[in-house]
Amino acid sequence: MIETPYLLFLGDAPDPLAAKVAQGIRDWRPDHAVGQYRMEGCKADLGLADMSLAEAKAAGARTLVIGVANRGGIISPAWKKVLVAALEEGFDLASGLHNLLRDEPDLAAVATACGRQLHDVRVPSVKYPIASGVPRSGKRCLAVGTDCSVGKMYTALAMDSEMKVRGLKSSFRATGQTGILITGDGVPLDAVVADFMAGSVEWLTPDNDADHWDMIEGQGSLFHVSYSGVTMALVHGGQPDALILCDEPTRPHMRGLPGYKLPSLEDLRDVALTLARVANPACQVIGISVNTQHMTEEQALAHLAEVEARMGLPAVDPFRQGAGRLVDALSAV
Amino acid sequence: MIETPYLLFLGDAPDPLAAKVAQGIRDWRPDHAVGQYRMEGCKADLGLADMSLAEAKAAGARTLVIGVANRGGIISPAWKKVLVAALEEGFDLASGLHNLLRDEPDLAAVATACGRQLHDVRVPSVKYPIASGVPRSGKRCLAVGTDCSVGKMYTALAMDSEMKVRGLKSSFRATGQTGILITGDGVPLDAVVADFMAGSVEWLTPDNDADHWDMIEGQGSLFHVSYSGVTMALVHGGQPDALILCDEPTRPHMRGLPGYKLPSLEDLRDVALTLARVANPACQVIGISVNTQHMTEEQALAHLAEVEARMGLPAVDPFRQGAGRLVDALSAV
Repeated sequence: MIETPYLLFLGDAPDPLAAKVAQGIRDWRPDHAVGQYRMEGCKADLGLADMSLAEAKAAGARTLVIGVANRGGIISPAWKKVLVAALEEGFDLASGLHNLLRDEPDLAAVATACGRQLHDVRVPSVKYPIASGVPRSGKRCLAVGTDCSVGKMYTALAMDSEMKVRGLKSSFRATGQTGILITGDGVPLDAVVADFMAGSVEWLTPDNDADHWDMIEGQGSLFHVSYSGVTMALVHGGQPDALILCDEPTRPHMRGLPGYKLPSLEDLRDVALTLARVANPACQVIGISVNTQHMTEEQALAHLAEVEARMGLPAVDPFRQGAGRLVDALSAV
Repeated sequence: MIETPYLLFLGDAPDPLAAKVAQGIRDWRPDHAVGQYRMEGCKADLGLADMSLAEAKAAGARTLVIGVANRGGIISPAWKKVLVAALEEGFDLASGLHNLLRDEPDLAAVATACGRQLHDVRVPSVKYPIASGVPRSGKRCLAVGTDCSVGKMYTALAMDSEMKVRGLKSSFRATGQTGILITGDGVPLDAVVADFMAGSVEWLTPDNDADHWDMIEGQGSLFHVSYSGVTMALVHGGQPDALILCDEPTRPHMRGLPGYKLPSLEDLRDVALTLARVANPACQVIGISVNTQHMTEEQALAHLAEVEARMGLPAVDPFRQGAGRLVDALSAV
């Protein structure tokens, strides 16, 4: 559990895209974002107040979150200076970088000396159980994709926000680095040891109120041969009551797999539902979320109408249209 | 890679079943088994020559393999005495125990001093890649089960033996502790980090001669909610050309999951084949292996005849009948 609120470290981001983790926090958990810390030459700007470490501390920030990708796979001396100063100022540090903070001897030593925490969210910090398969109370919704990176996290976050706007009970359950940094906790599923994957998802989505929904962040795809085992653990460990099918219709092949075509939404529906019903016989596919960022508004609306008619399910792009109709569909479950 | 041949350590096994790893080596790789080492009170006997460490060394043994389960989750002082003496005598040690040899300070120190290896086969020793999905040459056969522990390893080992008897090219590819100790190498798949599962299976079953078969040891079941992600990685990483369906028809529920019924062979066939064809569109289900150990001979034969007629595929119990008909079916692929 990472202490909130955050000061968002944008470093010397070469462009806005490099700071997409920070942007995610800004968009989805604005209450967590007290301010931003930018170094000389930073080309990203979240529109938050620029703060020094002392100013952020005074404003209540507890953790400095590295919200930017690092260049060349190293934590540069210039970054180090800020990170060490932040620890000395009393901040914990949180990072989703491949290089672990704990593996940097200077950061580790200063953190120990100052009594501060280093959160490397790529590494599991919990000893997860083996999945028991025992039915749980409360309801769970899982986004499953035709491919990786088609908008599963965005869909779950958008549905969670809409639920909260309506005063309904909902928790976004993060299963990847960005999601964990946005919400402050979760399971870094791709780094969990095979035998404990489904158990970690059960741990993440425990018994809850009968009218509470967990919006589980999806990972990978049942049709992506590199990562399908991770997706399978979500389908079985998550015991979803509702599935959302996610698609990006302009992609020529599976991400990183030039020889592999994307499955149809029908194929995804049939396979995902068959497997999900092993763990929860009542599971239903309730809607479709389409990432139409590479289409014009006109193309997008035509495509969504065609998918909706063909599949007999609400089909929306939550970025263009909001997640209202997907949340509407949950109420029928 | 564990150096062969072995001296099989049976310790103070309380009964023959406790030595089932040693029995597996004895049954499937008799050339690897130079002799057995038994302590006072040992109730297991593989019918091999009882040897002292010095005798086994003289007979050419290179590695002492712990072929017996330990009691109470500890490596006892009595075992330690033998293990230390074996290192000093020049043996490497190999173990599939949950307690790792390397975590015992005395064993680790003696091994270093003597220049010997400690092989803990539960722990991956390789940095596996992420799966690429690129088609590989050679052919691969994977056993998939209605449940865990229904005879997948036995089936693959029996088919591999039959292939070799016929002079055909075959490799058994181990994915679990017992299989790794039997053959001397493999991937401990249940201990691999999620993102690298499918890649480890690709690594295990590389390009090969066009007429060579890898007989891949299955794990878990696509229908077992605790371990299905591991099975999925085998189905996609293994790129199987042929699937064998494995069943144990008397089991009242999924292993360890009292609330879960076993799927039908038809359900297993349909789901496994749909998923396998993502990675290899030519994949076929070629036969059925039934573990009939809890049936009389008459019951077993009647059941196999019924399954064979119903599924339109050869159905055999390789323990009762050998794997000949399953190997016959491979030649059609």
